[in-house]
Amino acid sequence: MMKSIMMRDSRVVLEDAPIPEPGSGQVLVKSLACGICGSDLHLVRHSREIFDFYREIGVVPADTNAQDLEINLGHEFCAEIVSFGPDTNQQLAIGSRVTAVPMLLGEQGQLGVGVTPGVPGAYSEYFLLEEALLLPVPDALPNEAAALVEPLAVGLHAVNHAQPEADEVALVAGCGPIGLACIAALKHLGVKTIVASDPLATGRNNAAAFGATHVADPGAQDEMALATELAGDRRLVVLECVGLPRMIPDFIQRTPEQACIVFTGLHTEPVPFNPAHATVKQLNLKFSYYYEPEEYAACLQVLTGGNIPWQRMITGTVGINHVPDAFATLMQRNEHVKVIIEPFSNHQLRAYR
Amino acid sequence: MMKSIMMRDSRVVLEDAPIPEPGSGQVLVKSLACGICGSDLHLVRHSREIFDFYREIGVVPADTNAQDLEINLGHEFCAEIVSFGPDTNQQLAIGSRVTAVPMLLGEQGQLGVGVTPGVPGAYSEYFLLEEALLLPVPDALPNEAAALVEPLAVGLHAVNHAQPEADEVALVAGCGPIGLACIAALKHLGVKTIVASDPLATGRNNAAAFGATHVADPGAQDEMALATELAGDRRLVVLECVGLPRMIPDFIQRTPEQACIVFTGLHTEPVPFNPAHATVKQLNLKFSYYYEPEEYAACLQVLTGGNIPWQRMITGTVGINHVPDAFATLMQRNEHVKVIIEPFSNHQLRAYR
Repeated sequence: MMKSIMMRDSRVVLEDAPIPEPGSGQVLVKSLACGICGSDLHLVRHSREIFDFYREIGVVPADTNAQDLEINLGHEFCAEIVSFGPDTNQQLAIGSRVTAVPMLLGEQGQLGVGVTPGVPGAYSEYFLLEEALLLPVPDALPNEAAALVEPLAVGLHAVNHAQPEADEVALVAGCGPIGLACIAALKHLGVKTIVASDPLATGRNNAAAFGATHVADPGAQDEMALATELAGDRRLVVLECVGLPRMIPDFIQRTPEQACIVFTGLHTEPVPFNPAHATVKQLNLKFSYYYEPEEYAACLQVLTGGNIPWQRMITGTVGINHVPDAFATLMQRNEHVKVIIEPFSNHQLRAYR
Repeated sequence: MMKSIMMRDSRVVLEDAPIPEPGSGQVLVKSLACGICGSDLHLVRHSREIFDFYREIGVVPADTNAQDLEINLGHEFCAEIVSFGPDTNQQLAIGSRVTAVPMLLGEQGQLGVGVTPGVPGAYSEYFLLEEALLLPVPDALPNEAAALVEPLAVGLHAVNHAQPEADEVALVAGCGPIGLACIAALKHLGVKTIVASDPLATGRNNAAAFGATHVADPGAQDEMALATELAGDRRLVVLECVGLPRMIPDFIQRTPEQACIVFTGLHTEPVPFNPAHATVKQLNLKFSYYYEPEEYAACLQVLTGGNIPWQRMITGTVGINHVPDAFATLMQRNEHVKVIIEPFSNHQLRAYR
């Protein structure tokens, strides 16, 4: 048996669970570190709506009851190979540290690790990965850093949706982990003008450390006006990383002509917007989800290269027994950027370093 | 004085108006033919909402009263040069037939002819054009055909937003003038698989004549399923030409993964949509408005080349005195594709040919 965190009908609970058995092409891994993602908090907060959406799109059978919705969370991880299932190549040694796109490639198609009912996640002592997706983690990279490859890939994928040119201007709204990841990606791609907005000074400071050339407090300054002025007649690319549904109509109304807005959140409630603003400005709205394996690998490489001040993304760590308490804290107003779960530790939520 | 059609606070009226004076760079033209656009009907039907939107974005001053909203309609035209204003090159002879991007390039920026309060439109015996935008109409092209360059350009611009490859699949939803224009543009760009949907048999027949390779009655068949199946793992490009706001959430929900949806209508009321559908499918939403001068010129050239069965787009003509009656007819359920106003005629709405 192993310790595992289960999200069941909006409650986060510590449970004993059987250690999963790797299937064909799969690997059993030990979870060394796993980030708590904003989408995990969102899943707990909006459990019923997301469950309804899952039923609507067929992720769970239409006749499942809401109280039966169980998700074994955890999709941002560093792990260690424990054993191989059948039909594996076993090119990496047992004990190797790895990270991977959190997907199992089953016969029914891709199943997201840490978000799909019935699929083990990395908020557990052990879980399963697809061997074909494993990437070895270089020795120089600590566990908690490797766990950041996933959010970094989310940012790179969002930025790649917009295909920004070096001379175009980007506005990153919201400087949590995904906003910081977008800034890192923009800098990596050579975009010269990066405006970042966040109501918190910490967010703005982190943004500048990650590569933002301009920062704005949207409560004190019109960040869109600043970005629009900097863009001039060049295209403005807006990366919506605040993660609140009301930013969708707000940004559609406020962005300048010909702008491209990339939305990174997953919102299941109906959002009203005025299409005329999008039309007369000929906006391009893109909705980003996950990443490609190449983007994931690129983020691991860039992170290993040492050019990303990743330590700023982590503000706390917590042992597995105290994850329910940590969720209670994170569901309230707080200034954490990211908390890393250490599944084989048993300490309360504490500051990182 | 001249006869002119004015839209005032949702009423369409025939009035006598002074013949306008061409300003710097402008040309006075005689309106030979002018199409009634779906957006003209929309403007009359949703006059107050559009007026509120115009105030919001600064097209009219914020202190203007709704009952003072007057628009001189008409932006799809063939015209004849009558006289030149100051600062003109006069390279075309007086009497030349022309069409043009319906814009005046004033000091305050571009002003749309036929949609902007205070700017004369082509539902009048005379109106003004910008000399720099004039395109001569070849002798072989009748007036009413030249008046179709404008909607054809709307279609080409919408299609160009999606930049379809020849092997990608397009679904054109709604086979009115803009839908037919999109089909003509897709065919011109070499797109091999074009699905067109329309509840009317006439619309489907016209679509096939314009170049659709598959047609569907959305009341009897799932047109999205058909297009999705034809696309397979290639990108589906959806051109929304129905012009109803409810198509926005409907298509966001129904399009397959990675699709690009181009919306062509101008809707000013808030439309609720579920962003999660756009996110998990990573949709690309584009909102198209007007066209570039090069696209307008390309449409005139293709139309002159004889490969577009343009006669199918026109179902009626009406003399200027009977335009208010024609609007009353067109505001009801009807099967017209497009009605052409003949400003120097005085006959009731009648079938074309």
